[in-house]
Amino acid sequence: MRAYLLAVLSEHPGHFAPNFGTIELAIALHKVYDTPRDKVIWDIGHQAYPHKLLTGRRESFPTLRQRGGISGFLSRAESEYDVFGAGHSSTSIAAALGIATARDLINEHYKVVAVIGDGGLTGGMAFEALNAAGDFRNDMTVILNDNNMSISATVGAFSKHFHKLTSSPQYNFLRSGAKGLINMISEDAKQIARKIEASLKPGTLFEEFGFRYFGPLDGNDLEALIPVLTGIRSLTGPILLHVVTEKGRGYTPAEEDPVGFYSVSGPFNLKTGKTTKPKPETPAYTEVFSRTLIELAKRDARIVGVTAAMLGGTGLDKFASAFPSRCFDIGLAEQCAVTFAGGLAAQGMRPVAAIYSTFLQRSYDQVLHDVCIQNLPVIFALDRGGLVGADGPTHHGVFDLAFLRSIPNMVVMAPKDENELQSMVKTAVAYQEGPIAFRYPRGTGIGVKIAAEPQALPIGKSEIVREGEDVLVIAIGNRVYPALEAAQTLADSGISAAVINARFVKPLDTATILPLAERIGKVITIEDGVIMGGFGSAVLEALAAAGIKDVQITNLGIPDEFIEHGDIQQLYALCQCDADAVVRTAQAMLQ
Amino acid sequence: MRAYLLAVLSEHPGHFAPNFGTIELAIALHKVYDTPRDKVIWDIGHQAYPHKLLTGRRESFPTLRQRGGISGFLSRAESEYDVFGAGHSSTSIAAALGIATARDLINEHYKVVAVIGDGGLTGGMAFEALNAAGDFRNDMTVILNDNNMSISATVGAFSKHFHKLTSSPQYNFLRSGAKGLINMISEDAKQIARKIEASLKPGTLFEEFGFRYFGPLDGNDLEALIPVLTGIRSLTGPILLHVVTEKGRGYTPAEEDPVGFYSVSGPFNLKTGKTTKPKPETPAYTEVFSRTLIELAKRDARIVGVTAAMLGGTGLDKFASAFPSRCFDIGLAEQCAVTFAGGLAAQGMRPVAAIYSTFLQRSYDQVLHDVCIQNLPVIFALDRGGLVGADGPTHHGVFDLAFLRSIPNMVVMAPKDENELQSMVKTAVAYQEGPIAFRYPRGTGIGVKIAAEPQALPIGKSEIVREGEDVLVIAIGNRVYPALEAAQTLADSGISAAVINARFVKPLDTATILPLAERIGKVITIEDGVIMGGFGSAVLEALAAAGIKDVQITNLGIPDEFIEHGDIQQLYALCQCDADAVVRTAQAMLQ
Repeated sequence: MRAYLLAVLSEHPGHFAPNFGTIELAIALHKVYDTPRDKVIWDIGHQAYPHKLLTGRRESFPTLRQRGGISGFLSRAESEYDVFGAGHSSTSIAAALGIATARDLINEHYKVVAVIGDGGLTGGMAFEALNAAGDFRNDMTVILNDNNMSISATVGAFSKHFHKLTSSPQYNFLRSGAKGLINMISEDAKQIARKIEASLKPGTLFEEFGFRYFGPLDGNDLEALIPVLTGIRSLTGPILLHVVTEKGRGYTPAEEDPVGFYSVSGPFNLKTGKTTKPKPETPAYTEVFSRTLIELAKRDARIVGVTAAMLGGTGLDKFASAFPSRCFDIGLAEQCAVTFAGGLAAQGMRPVAAIYSTFLQRSYDQVLHDVCIQNLPVIFALDRGGLVGADGPTHHGVFDLAFLRSIPNMVVMAPKDENELQSMVKTAVAYQEGPIAFRYPRGTGIGVKIAAEPQALPIGKSEIVREGEDVLVIAIGNRVYPALEAAQTLADSGISAAVINARFVKPLDTATILPLAERIGKVITIEDGVIMGGFGSAVLEALAAAGIKDVQITNLGIPDEFIEHGDIQQLYALCQCDADAVVRTAQAMLQ
Repeated sequence: MRAYLLAVLSEHPGHFAPNFGTIELAIALHKVYDTPRDKVIWDIGHQAYPHKLLTGRRESFPTLRQRGGISGFLSRAESEYDVFGAGHSSTSIAAALGIATARDLINEHYKVVAVIGDGGLTGGMAFEALNAAGDFRNDMTVILNDNNMSISATVGAFSKHFHKLTSSPQYNFLRSGAKGLINMISEDAKQIARKIEASLKPGTLFEEFGFRYFGPLDGNDLEALIPVLTGIRSLTGPILLHVVTEKGRGYTPAEEDPVGFYSVSGPFNLKTGKTTKPKPETPAYTEVFSRTLIELAKRDARIVGVTAAMLGGTGLDKFASAFPSRCFDIGLAEQCAVTFAGGLAAQGMRPVAAIYSTFLQRSYDQVLHDVCIQNLPVIFALDRGGLVGADGPTHHGVFDLAFLRSIPNMVVMAPKDENELQSMVKTAVAYQEGPIAFRYPRGTGIGVKIAAEPQALPIGKSEIVREGEDVLVIAIGNRVYPALEAAQTLADSGISAAVINARFVKPLDTATILPLAERIGKVITIEDGVIMGGFGSAVLEALAAAGIKDVQITNLGIPDEFIEHGDIQQLYALCQCDADAVVRTAQAMLQ
């Protein structure tokens, strides 16, 4: 399995190190449990490739994360073995508890197992579910897959606590001792359970939650895992099995650099582990954000960074290197991260909460209740806004513009390119009146020249990037360049299109947009976010509020459905959210 | 203070029992800590009336929860002693950690204390923050105010665990022993700290989070609290003090029925504790929901109830009495509640997640990621939708229509009256294709006749409730009757208004709405939710998508600001979201 995973993942991008750590666990679970009758729920799903290979997806695995191919996460639509879909973390225990509860209500009989990483366990809803499960006392097993890693190293007092367990003499005893159990596999399973319970490490936190605790056990040792799981399967009630696995296990470059190998983004050399994909010439948006923030932070000691277990992904790792005492990784805990930032802002700091758009969904209420109601000047740097491509529906950051603009006091921006992102970082830092967000896409920029010194933008001011008479295209964020491309194409066929780069979803630049829309009379809005309630909807509201009618408007964006994974340009085309769609729409309007 | 609280609260509605439990704690905190230099952050704020009385709001306290008066929760705008606003639970530790971090970054020197209830501690973000705080190790103190109550009795394994502590011999020792400490108050505070640490109960969960644990201590015993807090104030690092208080303390009817006295809704007889407010003749929406669900559940064993610590508030208490094994209180943990419901639905159950609109904000991501992406048929019963009046900005349920309609697969309904609510409960249960939500207002219904047998509504079908020619009013939810009232007023002045009861925000009944809007040409939408991205915005989108122009539209609803507390009808008037506003708007349109 390692060889096959390595062969496929050295050619195709995907999550890497987590899956090399769970191979033995997946094999043991499918051997001991009667899947899919027994329900195994994998948290997040980026650790579930071995599970996929064992459950009918070996042949199709090279289609991983490509359009129409295998999802990079769990998917109920893909397989009956994928019991509960996931892409965000910390959901598996709550889902497992629901499944176990349903089972007991209708008197069915099967086992329910949730597999959650130590990173996932730092998310509050995992605790909520442990707390309820220990109380409800349904028969279910939680396997804590402890590899001392969320994506970067796991943070938090709790994780330190249970890592102490793994250096205990008991651990070493169990590590070697459990192997002997394999010979007992033919014995009565309860017998085995009693024996492993004798080596149980008592007094842990999990027991205070009402769980019977087993472990820690070497989760890469198949000969230990199978008898222990066999024993555990024979018990009932809430059980927690703590296994220790190694990320990247069996592939030396990944063992040595599990953070670098958390996921791989393209072909790499099998021997060296070095990527063979040429480094793009244009910088990533993340890189521009990070660089700009560091420059600004040199001049303003109040600027601090806040991340929820995404130091590397958000580019805050470099900020942390530059200002070690001014960067805070709160764990896989977006809720706490946002309210923590609120507390910092309340005392005069300028916290920059750098969170992926899709993960900000986790802290919707904290944004609203803790930051916006109090009008605290927290800066939200929302990476991976819009479609993200291969990660698919759980990760597309397409809801942020809609849900953020409904919240009073919030300023919402999206840059057309990496240079404008730099300006928006500066704008956000200069703005002191309340919360402000800028969201930017995954991947590399357009390749434009980046100004030596970023300039703050006037709040709520758009820019007219092309004059025209027949149709007005109002674009936001990374849809500005496709709009310009469409305008060029339309010009070739004799249609004159004006293009506005809105820059601000909120406050909307009605002073520029409304007169132009009224004069031209035909308007196309385009955004890389959901149409329902999104940016285009804001334009419609503004026109209605101003009493302007006689304007024909078409809103382009992400339609009202979850968008599958696939190549991002293909997805934009499918969503009718690209230059071609603007051309077609304009032509139809002018017919 | 008890006498004054009792005098005011027996006349004015407000939170009751929690505040009677925290009197000694508030006094001790303000005596020992140097507030407002030292920062005391109260969780939720419904336990903070004694704190308010001690910090300059004694005279104005009888204006509690009235427009322009004292807020029922914490408010930074109201007092510098209200360090961090709150109305939702479990935020205080994260906020305190942010504040302590800011303090240490800029080298200021003061103490930071978070006061959180045992109920609040069941919310995941409290754990996230404990986990981070134990790791960051800033100087801060968390006071666990343990009264075995969230609003109903606290649930969860964890709460059972720490209640065991309070029946320990140590507790009784400390309870009596701590009183002796009062004599030492002149001694060195560190000396005291050492003595109380000697009676520390070791081995608790909090120590595994990196907190130094003190307690349990009788939190209604001022003579014990003051020396213990004095000692604790002299220590540094993360400290948790566990105090046990009694809800309703000092007022016998509330001590005997702390759930009933969680809050009081109007004048009551001081002697008996019985309300003197006449029971309204029309049933509350909550009651109609509860009754209908019970009737339907008698015929369908798959229907189960899920609540997040709101059995009474949501009316699920009666459901739980009728079907004890089919109702699940997950704790103050909306995230877990929604994903748990998803797990139930995945196995064929029909879970009804009954959650206040404002608290559903906490599970935005779980609704989207765990339920809607997988299109699981979870039923969302959203109580307290729209403006809620006296509870103010943290509790108005005005964002739900906007944030729910942006999520694919979701059906969103709002009833015009209690009879239609009954139909919608039936509709939701009959609908099997995916997630469905109905949201209904706080308080009593309109007083209409309730059908003996509820009828399911066709999905996505509105009803024309009044024909008219000059202007079309499209109303949703509890704004339908004001729209009808406005139509009547307009008729008197010669304007003929048609009124549509939309029933569905999503799917929108475009087949009815669009032709009528096009024919009449003047449209007013009205909703008890935010205009930005809300129901009216959906109407605009639908008209644009159909290529219909020449229609003049005005969207009425909640404007883009946080609405303060106050009388609900007054608030609707201020928001221009009532019958008068419809009349004025229609007249202006037709001038």
